[in-house]
Amino acid sequence: MIKAGIVGATGYAGAELVRLLYAHPEAEVRAVSSVSFEGQKLSDVYPAYSSLNDMVCENQNTVVETCDVVFAALPHGLSQELAAQCMVAGKAFIDLGADFRLESEDAYTEWYGGTFLDKELHAQSVYGLPELFRDTIKGKKLIANPGCYTTCSPLAIAPAIINGLVSTKGIICDCKSGVTGAGRKPAQGSHFPELNEGFHAYKVASHRHTPEIEQTLSRLSGERVTVTFVPHLLPVNRGILATVYADIKDGVTFEKIREAYEVCYGDEFFVRLLGDGKCADIHNVRYSNFCDISLHFDKRAGKLIACAAIDNMVKGAAGQAIQNMNIIFGLDEKTGLVIVPPAF
Amino acid sequence: MIKAGIVGATGYAGAELVRLLYAHPEAEVRAVSSVSFEGQKLSDVYPAYSSLNDMVCENQNTVVETCDVVFAALPHGLSQELAAQCMVAGKAFIDLGADFRLESEDAYTEWYGGTFLDKELHAQSVYGLPELFRDTIKGKKLIANPGCYTTCSPLAIAPAIINGLVSTKGIICDCKSGVTGAGRKPAQGSHFPELNEGFHAYKVASHRHTPEIEQTLSRLSGERVTVTFVPHLLPVNRGILATVYADIKDGVTFEKIREAYEVCYGDEFFVRLLGDGKCADIHNVRYSNFCDISLHFDKRAGKLIACAAIDNMVKGAAGQAIQNMNIIFGLDEKTGLVIVPPAF
Amino acid sequence: MIKAGIVGATGYAGAELVRLLYAHPEAEVRAVSSVSFEGQKLSDVYPAYSSLNDMVCENQNTVVETCDVVFAALPHGLSQELAAQCMVAGKAFIDLGADFRLESEDAYTEWYGGTFLDKELHAQSVYGLPELFRDTIKGKKLIANPGCYTTCSPLAIAPAIINGLVSTKGIICDCKSGVTGAGRKPAQGSHFPELNEGFHAYKVASHRHTPEIEQTLSRLSGERVTVTFVPHLLPVNRGILATVYADIKDGVTFEKIREAYEVCYGDEFFVRLLGDGKCADIHNVRYSNFCDISLHFDKRAGKLIACAAIDNMVKGAAGQAIQNMNIIFGLDEKTGLVIVPPAF
Amino acid sequence: MIKAGIVGATGYAGAELVRLLYAHPEAEVRAVSSVSFEGQKLSDVYPAYSSLNDMVCENQNTVVETCDVVFAALPHGLSQELAAQCMVAGKAFIDLGADFRLESEDAYTEWYGGTFLDKELHAQSVYGLPELFRDTIKGKKLIANPGCYTTCSPLAIAPAIINGLVSTKGIICDCKSGVTGAGRKPAQGSHFPELNEGFHAYKVASHRHTPEIEQTLSRLSGERVTVTFVPHLLPVNRGILATVYADIKDGVTFEKIREAYEVCYGDEFFVRLLGDGKCADIHNVRYSNFCDISLHFDKRAGKLIACAAIDNMVKGAAGQAIQNMNIIFGLDEKTGLVIVPPAF
Repeated sequence: MIKAGIVGATGYAGAELVRLLYAHPEAEVRAVSSVSFEGQKLSDVYPAYSSLNDMVCENQNTVVETCDVVFAALPHGLSQELAAQCMVAGKAFIDLGADFRLESEDAYTEWYGGTFLDKELHAQSVYGLPELFRDTIKGKKLIANPGCYTTCSPLAIAPAIINGLVSTKGIICDCKSGVTGAGRKPAQGSHFPELNEGFHAYKVASHRHTPEIEQTLSRLSGERVTVTFVPHLLPVNRGILATVYADIKDGVTFEKIREAYEVCYGDEFFVRLLGDGKCADIHNVRYSNFCDISLHFDKRAGKLIACAAIDNMVKGAAGQAIQNMNIIFGLDEKTGLVIVPPAF
Repeated sequence: MIKAGIVGATGYAGAELVRLLYAHPEAEVRAVSSVSFEGQKLSDVYPAYSSLNDMVCENQNTVVETCDVVFAALPHGLSQELAAQCMVAGKAFIDLGADFRLESEDAYTEWYGGTFLDKELHAQSVYGLPELFRDTIKGKKLIANPGCYTTCSPLAIAPAIINGLVSTKGIICDCKSGVTGAGRKPAQGSHFPELNEGFHAYKVASHRHTPEIEQTLSRLSGERVTVTFVPHLLPVNRGILATVYADIKDGVTFEKIREAYEVCYGDEFFVRLLGDGKCADIHNVRYSNFCDISLHFDKRAGKLIACAAIDNMVKGAAGQAIQNMNIIFGLDEKTGLVIVPPAF
Repeated sequence: MIKAGIVGATGYAGAELVRLLYAHPEAEVRAVSSVSFEGQKLSDVYPAYSSLNDMVCENQNTVVETCDVVFAALPHGLSQELAAQCMVAGKAFIDLGADFRLESEDAYTEWYGGTFLDKELHAQSVYGLPELFRDTIKGKKLIANPGCYTTCSPLAIAPAIINGLVSTKGIICDCKSGVTGAGRKPAQGSHFPELNEGFHAYKVASHRHTPEIEQTLSRLSGERVTVTFVPHLLPVNRGILATVYADIKDGVTFEKIREAYEVCYGDEFFVRLLGDGKCADIHNVRYSNFCDISLHFDKRAGKLIACAAIDNMVKGAAGQAIQNMNIIFGLDEKTGLVIVPPAF
Repeated sequence: MIKAGIVGATGYAGAELVRLLYAHPEAEVRAVSSVSFEGQKLSDVYPAYSSLNDMVCENQNTVVETCDVVFAALPHGLSQELAAQCMVAGKAFIDLGADFRLESEDAYTEWYGGTFLDKELHAQSVYGLPELFRDTIKGKKLIANPGCYTTCSPLAIAPAIINGLVSTKGIICDCKSGVTGAGRKPAQGSHFPELNEGFHAYKVASHRHTPEIEQTLSRLSGERVTVTFVPHLLPVNRGILATVYADIKDGVTFEKIREAYEVCYGDEFFVRLLGDGKCADIHNVRYSNFCDISLHFDKRAGKLIACAAIDNMVKGAAGQAIQNMNIIFGLDEKTGLVIVPPAF
């Protein structure tokens, strides 16, 4: 039984880890920490968990000492020291924050405003998007778990990029996210009466997930890719739909594109490629680690339109973190994550 | 491995059985049937299930032949013949419909308009509300699974009734249900723009669950109990909150009432009795088999107010049916039903 | 043209006054104030108002000086001084807060914790629920505008009380309110992911509107009435449904009750008495000053069940305040308030 | 007083016309018709309207005979004969359906499958998007009222197109609509439990509004424009957000683009151009005829991103139809349409 610990357990990503790990047959949450709720029961913060998990929040050090693997769901800038502490203690570290996601320190500084405190530490880290970079994850101990938008946007378009079927210029990721992506802290923008029955874009072409999406697509294509990324806020709890637009290269048929997706994702349990005429819907992946992808072809404009739907808190955060844990501990990648999404 | 079959699998209760049984370690869905979708894949109706359950809907007879236990989620009137067929074939039968819930044929005729086709069959059936009538369920093969309102309303008030702490006169059950209770079939009243941002009562003091609630409370009290039952429709997918009002008998203290609840539910895994000052919330039981109960005391008016929250599709339908299956097959009652409700 | 001013204009009730007064043909908002947003444009707080109302928030004194009528939407305790200031300046004052609603200082102290700073001022005030106490409102200058629950609960049951058709003992008001009732300030309980898909009671039998409902029913009946009042929070923006239960007196028929309602409300423009078999729905009164009432009869238990639906921000706050303004300024009571509720 | 009639009054667009015309000072609904509800009161279909409009639905001929202007909200194919009838009778005709929107019969046949029954009739019709084509509308009697997506998408990008600031190639309209756009008729896709908490694209690059958007942009640019149009379904009642992407031409600055929008829309009452850093939100235009537009600039990719928010039932249907009526009857275009959108 893997002893798992969660630093920042009272945030939404941390709480979702608690929920998912409860059903994991080979891992067990042994310690949780929270700065805001230290000394309080997790189930006081989330009464939904009562009687199943009434653990008391401790401090970060206790988590590191107690556990084999430490999941961190912290504001950016705070994971680097904790990662170092884990490495010294020989613990696996899976970071749900942004500190280790960008390989380029310049990009990190430009978009997040900090620096790499320990460049060697960063060199040890690996970007944990299994469907695209599985082989690099195995055997590692420091995982940068991708963000939510940065999981579904690349998954939507990756097979077309890898196989050179679309132009890497002018790619647009028009994304729509549920509210949990903004976290647990109340704010005017997530106050029920102002968000309900509303819909708007935010951080247009300036969201911090932009360089991360570009890093992934650049790595897949071998070229430096720039994307236009526009996130929107949906009045739902969970889910992201990424609608990704790319120009199809001359002579490439839709059949060829679909074939590339089938080859790329045919063996991927967590990617469900929908049939022609179907549209990916966040409704169908809620509470699960699935990424549903539908392909559409605008013949008149020569564009591929790929829609990818994930649960932002599962495949976009906690579920993928567990998937990474499974990989680095040598378990079947699906362990604990074979979940039927509710139909309603 | 118990071979489970579902008749009426494409309705909401049937579909929820499929979802929950997928995670059951000792049972497996072997056959499903649907009149409307015979020959089609269940995952065509519910794309959420794709790749996990792509079974084809067959007919009712195939389900009976193939399985050890048959769950039926059918319109009232249609279960009686199927039950007889199962009994002859030696199969367990768990009816999520109303045909076997009422012991009194007169009441059935008054509220549902039909008759008991086979009185002996009805004599074999047992009402499957385990927390209140567990001992009578064991060893049976024909279970009348309670309705949704009729699970949470009695659970809210049972300990006070059993112990004679409140009057059995003038009990009011003001209940609020999510929309899935109305089933899968589109109707004007469940058309999104007309239900969303709305809230209203329906079938006021005339809903068919009334005699069923009364039957349970009468059985617990030994008196003939009449209740006022008013259901309302909530613009949410899942959940029922029952707010039950009863007059406290003279000399009974709130402490005594709470004590009665603690004794009654102290060992019940699926009932979570909340502490003073907390209020049961449907949000905290979604997708789980829990019934959360909070107790409130109106000193000025001498009333007990008990709130009970369940997921109408789980503890109010499919989850409780599986709980009953576990009982009659001699499994730990919790098997497959230890589910952490999502915090958001 | 009546010069209207709003103190506390950036709260929800204040903002709703701005919206409704914009369409009023005989009144005009001339000044608004806000402690939190002084010096800022109201349309910066509520971009929905841009180009129609870009007034800058000033301070309270400016509002009093500039206007003929001052509406106050302030936390309790803050209206008394302002009311005094208005009286001295000869301005009409309509208080949307609670300071003047309770006639009994003891009750005010018990439920709100303060005292009446100036008893003579309180003696001048009048409770502004026009459908029940219209005659006492005319000619007054200091109006205590009723709260939301305290408008719809009494309206639901008043005709039965006035005519002595139901017992004044054991009345239950089971109320369900939209989220705007909790105001503009973000809080965990109104954070979208935790409220959405949830439903729960709160302040059970301890909400401050209890003595106000009792005051109204006592005044109507001539007896001291105690009610059980349980509010719940609905995941919708607007609306309150009050489901009120009362024991019908011996010998009283349902026809007689309906007749009493027809007599009482037949000439009331803002009360719409629904026909038999219909159920009041908050959906049908949104954004309007209507109170829809449906009557139901539980023959088996001898109870009247009356459902009343209002928009909590209109008939339950700003709309009723304008209705009161119309009365005290001698206008047709409906002026500016004849609004078709949207059908969706 | 203009006598207005509505054919198809029980559909959502027809019902919204009834609501808006009620507040119009110079027009009055004199007759309504409905095939499905002939002989029934409109307020039986929409109880929200009770006591304000209890008109009985008549037939189409009565509407034409009784009224000066006939609004038609009919399935495509059914307006042509009615238009002819109105022209003969000398009545103005405003078609909220699609029959007269496309100038090209070939396009109509390709996308809708019908033909132009009377080419001369089509020649008399004019496309009623006032902000872009006001001058052509004046003095006409047969108005093709634009669709919802086809109002907000062109408004979002028009000033940039008119002034040649962006390329007309590769324009993408990623649009998100509330559910009322799908009409009153219940369907699986608008059944509350399946739409709520969901989000998906539909009719990707194949929606019938595509040629209409292209027609408008072609007319503005003088070139034949092809767009990629992808509609999505939002779990809200009302509103469309169009996020439109276009490549900025070399040398064009963001300032120049904003200036073009300011010139183009500076005098347009119903277009509100938001300041830098703001994002158009459907929440802020609900129930009103406004179109809020925000401009965003992706410097890294050289793209203009323009967001336009409308209420699909008002500016996208009934409101714009009334705006057109005002124009052709020589009234101030804003008459009856100066509505403060609710802040919540």
